Amino acid sequence: MRNLNQHTITDAVIDRFADTPDPRLKQILTSLVRHLHDFAREVELTEAEWMKGIEFLTATGQKCDATRQEFILLSDTLGLSMLTVALNHDKPAGATEATVFGPFHVEGAPHYENGGDVGNGASGEPCMVRGTVRSLDGTPIPGARLEVWQADSEGFYDVQRDALDHAQGRGVLEADAQGRFHFRSVLPVAYPIPDDGTVGEMLRATRRHPWRPAHLHFMVTALGFETLVTHIFRKGDAYLDSDAVFGVRESLLGDWRLQADGTYLLDFDLVLNPTRVTTARAASAPRELSQVA
Amino acid sequence: MRNLNQHTITDAVIDRFADTPDPRLKQILTSLVRHLHDFAREVELTEAEWMKGIEFLTATGQKCDATRQEFILLSDTLGLSMLTVALNHDKPAGATEATVFGPFHVEGAPHYENGGDVGNGASGEPCMVRGTVRSLDGTPIPGARLEVWQADSEGFYDVQRDALDHAQGRGVLEADAQGRFHFRSVLPVAYPIPDDGTVGEMLRATRRHPWRPAHLHFMVTALGFETLVTHIFRKGDAYLDSDAVFGVRESLLGDWRLQADGTYLLDFDLVLNPTRVTTARAASAPRELSQVA
Ligand SMILES: [Fe+2]
Ligand SMILES: [Fe+2]
Repeated sequence: MRNLNQHTITDAVIDRFADTPDPRLKQILTSLVRHLHDFAREVELTEAEWMKGIEFLTATGQKCDATRQEFILLSDTLGLSMLTVALNHDKPAGATEATVFGPFHVEGAPHYENGGDVGNGASGEPCMVRGTVRSLDGTPIPGARLEVWQADSEGFYDVQRDALDHAQGRGVLEADAQGRFHFRSVLPVAYPIPDDGTVGEMLRATRRHPWRPAHLHFMVTALGFETLVTHIFRKGDAYLDSDAVFGVRESLLGDWRLQADGTYLLDFDLVLNPTRVTTARAASAPRELSQVA
Repeated sequence: MRNLNQHTITDAVIDRFADTPDPRLKQILTSLVRHLHDFAREVELTEAEWMKGIEFLTATGQKCDATRQEFILLSDTLGLSMLTVALNHDKPAGATEATVFGPFHVEGAPHYENGGDVGNGASGEPCMVRGTVRSLDGTPIPGARLEVWQADSEGFYDVQRDALDHAQGRGVLEADAQGRFHFRSVLPVAYPIPDDGTVGEMLRATRRHPWRPAHLHFMVTALGFETLVTHIFRKGDAYLDSDAVFGVRESLLGDWRLQADGTYLLDFDLVLNPTRVTTARAASAPRELSQVA
């Protein structure tokens, strides 16, 4: 434990986790330390760079508040979020694919009846979204809970508008006895992720654009089925091949069609995957690291 | 860029850094993304665990303020800080070894004449520290600047005491024409790193103790020499083999000897390494990621 060098320190740190009661936490920390140290050795990290990293992470945490989650943005833009989705949602053919959760979901969205206007005053071209929630064999799933959220025509979610005191473009619905849902809202448009924080600095320093193709977020839950967190992306969007957060899947492209009355209509069915048997790994997720207040 | 899976996403993210103007930043981000993704794949990170990670990092950033740096503590306790020191300070035999910077250094420490009392009211047993700053061939280095900082007898640095309005146990001195320095202070004692934040949660969850062996921090600068950031550790301390931040080096053990008058005396010489030729790597440190305000 004395005189550790750049080669011996990694095992010394890992040894320090020897008495960790939760085997999954021990596994995660062991792997994390090994990869973090490998990274530092590989690039021969300088002390000035280390300090920049400390400052970057600190500023990232301090940019977060009730409606801004800069670490999710960082994870999204480094592809870690989409990788985690891919690792956990290798769904069978026919099931609607999952994509990133994103930083703009908030609890307590208002409830709407089918046919209601989820836009609720958000700017944008009027549209109607409708579909059926089904299981893999095509059976409708009555009473499935759908939560939807989206940006307005200026590319902002309601939580990004300080002056706004009510939800816009965000709501919870329930599929009817035939698994059907429909609601009014506004046409989603491409938007840049917030770039006035550390993630924006990273994007500018790497000459990356902050844009996401137009999309509508869904979270669908029903008893006996895996929760589906996904988007429907707008077919034809210019950013489908360069989404800032790597979330696009061909199967999630939807066609908002212009109707004779000047409104748009999207038809899109959502197919849920049955709940899987809980694996030992998932069941032993670490519980001891506490939540943010 | 569509339909990325857990195997293809890593190269897709790295491709996105293709236009990064600073080659060093590009190298660091490429390596970071590869190791971060390898970690997630290796442990098959679940979404709940990913969210715990996001919350942990957010809370870590939000614990930081002018006198608390939780990300440095995290880096220290994961051995990343000491690894970075090892990568950058592979010094020749005879040079005083470096160790971690730690989170308790602050700018603007008061200046003292040789013989002054750096303790400045800090609680603890009185001691005298003296030595000579020398180069590798033994030549004294006149006028070397020494900054020292340490905890009091209760294990607290002055910046951890809200009620305190002046520096204690912290000061800047100048070596005399023979490279000699001496100052009064208090005997360092072992102390636990602050464990009321996320790092404390990590230590408890892994059954690690938060203690550091008693030590005195030094930062020594002189024209033509590499800046030396180090500690002198107290010989015989119970935590020398289990320092919470992996910083102990046998060559840095000092003997604070009890004198007949009841005070302690430490003699310790500091040997500086000449400035090295700047390497291309160090010269091209990324400059575009901005500082914490
Ligand atoms: Fe979004
Ligand atoms: Fe210390």
